[in-house]
Amino acid sequence: LASRLPNVGTTIFTVMSALAAEKGAVNLGQGFPDFECDPALVDAVGAAMREGLNQYPPMTGVPALREAIAAKINTLYGHAYDPAAEITITAGATQALLTAILCSVHPGDEVVVIEPVYDSYVPAIELAGGKPVFVQMEVGAQGYSVPWDKVQAAVSPKTRLIMINSPHNPTGSILRPADMQALAAIVRGTDILIVSDEVYEHMVYDGVRHESVSRYPELAARAFVVSSFGKTYHVTGWKIGYVAAPAPLMAEFRKVHQFNVFTVNTPVQHGIARYMADPAPYLDLPAFYQRKRDLFRDGLRSTRLRLLPGDGTYFQCVDYSAVSSLPEAEFATWLTTEIGVAAIPVSAFYNQPRESGIVRFCFAKKDETLRTALERLAKI
Amino acid sequence: LASRLPNVGTTIFTVMSALAAEKGAVNLGQGFPDFECDPALVDAVGAAMREGLNQYPPMTGVPALREAIAAKINTLYGHAYDPAAEITITAGATQALLTAILCSVHPGDEVVVIEPVYDSYVPAIELAGGKPVFVQMEVGAQGYSVPWDKVQAAVSPKTRLIMINSPHNPTGSILRPADMQALAAIVRGTDILIVSDEVYEHMVYDGVRHESVSRYPELAARAFVVSSFGKTYHVTGWKIGYVAAPAPLMAEFRKVHQFNVFTVNTPVQHGIARYMADPAPYLDLPAFYQRKRDLFRDGLRSTRLRLLPGDGTYFQCVDYSAVSSLPEAEFATWLTTEIGVAAIPVSAFYNQPRESGIVRFCFAKKDETLRTALERLAKI
Ligand SMILES: CSCCC(=O)C(=O)O
Ligand SMILES: CSCCC(=O)C(=O)O
Repeated sequence: LASRLPNVGTTIFTVMSALAAEKGAVNLGQGFPDFECDPALVDAVGAAMREGLNQYPPMTGVPALREAIAAKINTLYGHAYDPAAEITITAGATQALLTAILCSVHPGDEVVVIEPVYDSYVPAIELAGGKPVFVQMEVGAQGYSVPWDKVQAAVSPKTRLIMINSPHNPTGSILRPADMQALAAIVRGTDILIVSDEVYEHMVYDGVRHESVSRYPELAARAFVVSSFGKTYHVTGWKIGYVAAPAPLMAEFRKVHQFNVFTVNTPVQHGIARYMADPAPYLDLPAFYQRKRDLFRDGLRSTRLRLLPGDGTYFQCVDYSAVSSLPEAEFATWLTTEIGVAAIPVSAFYNQPRESGIVRFCFAKKDETLRTALERLAKI
Repeated sequence: LASRLPNVGTTIFTVMSALAAEKGAVNLGQGFPDFECDPALVDAVGAAMREGLNQYPPMTGVPALREAIAAKINTLYGHAYDPAAEITITAGATQALLTAILCSVHPGDEVVVIEPVYDSYVPAIELAGGKPVFVQMEVGAQGYSVPWDKVQAAVSPKTRLIMINSPHNPTGSILRPADMQALAAIVRGTDILIVSDEVYEHMVYDGVRHESVSRYPELAARAFVVSSFGKTYHVTGWKIGYVAAPAPLMAEFRKVHQFNVFTVNTPVQHGIARYMADPAPYLDLPAFYQRKRDLFRDGLRSTRLRLLPGDGTYFQCVDYSAVSSLPEAEFATWLTTEIGVAAIPVSAFYNQPRESGIVRFCFAKKDETLRTALERLAKI
């Protein structure tokens, strides 16, 4: 069988989690919480199951959940999506991203991708027959930023999509209003669409604001905005997210969605719809994670790992070049095996070999897990 | 946005369910049970959630579930799949089918599709850049059957896949050993792969045996075998199924799977793994549905709707040509609106306009629902 994805192996997240388990390392690699979700959320899903809400929901998702999402977006970002025609529930953000790409990219189309980039984007583009065109973020004293002039230069008449991600995995950087204006200037007058991966939308620190594409009518009019309940509600294993997009784009999204997963677990949808009635869990998230982030960053300051700036996500990148000249993948393996803390090499987020001496830690962990990791990292 | 699927509208199942709801009709259209699943299954998922099994499972699925599936297949069909390398849990059978097609069909490849055909197959082939080549089942006194000589004639050097489905939706027909031998003779000596949609594997009647592809080593060696817990356990809304395939095929399947949904709801996987320890629920399914089928068929015998033969699935096709000369879609609409019973036009399972005067009813319903439907149908 000739491979459709000859360059793809097992994702780095699976590889590092397996190594962490094998070596008994603290797993700060793959991004997932090691603490429990809110029992009220579990109860809400359990109640829906016991009420017999176990058969197919509408293909687009349970209406109450689409309405709760539209209300949330409107309150937070001031954009009124029509829950009937402009919101669809997905089996997680990864499925949303693949579906958005499959429904919009025709063979030969180009897609501008900004590296470091989450590992699903490029295979998804390739499955659609599209061609990824890469632009690299730049690293300065303020951390990672997008060089919009290079994005502009990467655009051609064949460009169908630009993919953005803020708060950004793995760097934790956040697009600012000036970034959004630069992006708007690039797409203005073209038929380029935007896929905006905002799964860490509720994880922003130090008072920085999340610039959702939905805040910018000019961008929202051509964007698929993707988010994830797994990240927001500490249930990465539940595999549920959503897409918001203007009706004509959503109509195309749904054509592919209905023949991909068709729809998403019914009781989970009802449970989350009810749980969303209280906005506190996501409104409290910045403060919840700020504390963990401060704990982790403060602990690392006494090590020779240099903290990189970043204002969002539950990831922290560090420059280890004062410690080791190993390539990133080897350093991450060494860290897991010898120090007992798993991390993700940032090189795994590049499509060409690229070594910057940087690895990523996930701080969505119990305080005691973070403390154990810090004790071990202090030994470096 | 130029459509990737210009011929696709909203699925007939969504359309007819919406019409049934609007008109207050008994919904024998879309295939789903209107009765509750086993409370023990709900409890098993609830327990897994409360135990904190809410983060990412392995990409391929929870090991205990893959092991339970491999054991079931081995017991029932005598094929020993390796649960580590040859079984993957999917977000329902539809996602399994799309993923199997995306990982194996290259642009320009041909895929043999047997009509009537479930509505997701052809869009999935088109998304992969493949070309569907259609063969029509034939209808005789014994019901629907596959003309293997025509399948043979449809095969070309470009054929990459043959898609089969038994027990068959919508006709309820079942492939017999002679069918499997005919298929084996066609693919022998070629590199043609098989996708075998067996989601109704546990719904077979009158003592007929399900001929899983996994019973036939020669076929299993080149097949993706797809099944569905939603159908088997009366939880169509849970969106969980699986694929079994030889390791080299599964390796390619997983490359696409990990960038489509990545994985499937963790507590649902654990709950089903535990529930599968008792084989009774699926071993009892033929008797459970045989009773409903007999009730429904017996009730229809006094009407002018002619029962078509069929030994599997929870669908019953009827020929209404003694009653009406309306095209099938119009007849189904009339039936829903005027008689108060929703059905699915079998023409919706053909890619070219095709009228046979046949509609499909779903009998996965409470006895009282079936009785109400029969009372209404008696008025035709
Ligand atoms: C799907 S496993 C990867 C989880 C994640 O988003 C990350 O660690 O970056
Ligand atoms: C995914 S909705 C359709 C359910 C079904 O399999 C059918 O009715 O044929």
